[in-house]
Amino acid sequence: MTPPTDDDAGRFAFEGLDRVLHEKARLGILASLLAHRDGVTFTDLKDLCALTDGNLSRHLTALQKASLIAIEKGTAGRRPQTRVKLTATGKKRFLEYLAVLEGIISGALSNATPPATTADAQLNPA
Amino acid sequence: MTPPTDDDAGRFAFEGLDRVLHEKARLGILASLLAHRDGVTFTDLKDLCALTDGNLSRHLTALQKASLIAIEKGTAGRRPQTRVKLTATGKKRFLEYLAVLEGIISGALSNATPPATTADAQLNPA
Repeated sequence: MTPPTDDDAGRFAFEGLDRVLHEKARLGILASLLAHRDGVTFTDLKDLCALTDGNLSRHLTALQKASLIAIEKGTAGRRPQTRVKLTATGKKRFLEYLAVLEGIISGALSNATPPATTADAQLNPA
Repeated sequence: MTPPTDDDAGRFAFEGLDRVLHEKARLGILASLLAHRDGVTFTDLKDLCALTDGNLSRHLTALQKASLIAIEKGTAGRRPQTRVKLTATGKKRFLEYLAVLEGIISGALSNATPPATTADAQLNPA
């Protein structure tokens, strides 16, 4: 395989991969909200994503600051209820993020399976 | 859309998504190494991933501790040269990670596009 050229500089920097969204717990939160267009209560979101109160709160604050989600405080019967929804911006940014990620994966997988040659097999027995 | 049921608990926890690999810079490093089966020098890897010396070093240490990469110290002419390679374990774990990620993306995208109804359109004008 040829060594990297100058043209390859930054090729694997993945600039398009939004760090605000690229966090395991946030990925779960955003996927939950994308699947529930009417929003999800705080309690349900905690269960869906297997997060603690504190952890979920911290991630929601970060996502809200980035205008990706909206948090609505209301009541269910007499009890207070917090409902979380994806904003239009959040939906757009998350779908864009998923598309970037898809491109990275297909690129990585296509690079992983070059046509095997005898020389390769000898150099890389594993 | 129906509210989450008990069966959905942890559905978006994405347990299979390995945190050691799920970091933007590490994703770039591993994808670079997957594309260069003979390994990449420290200098080339820095360029490919657009990382500083310190940042790349820290991530390589973490990946080496997890037995995902091997670091070989050698020389090129009279100058010391560090070469980084994906281990067999690293290749296996990274391909598994990519497969998990692919599943998450296709799941999220399939949930994102339910058949639109008039009620949905009224509730979710955005």
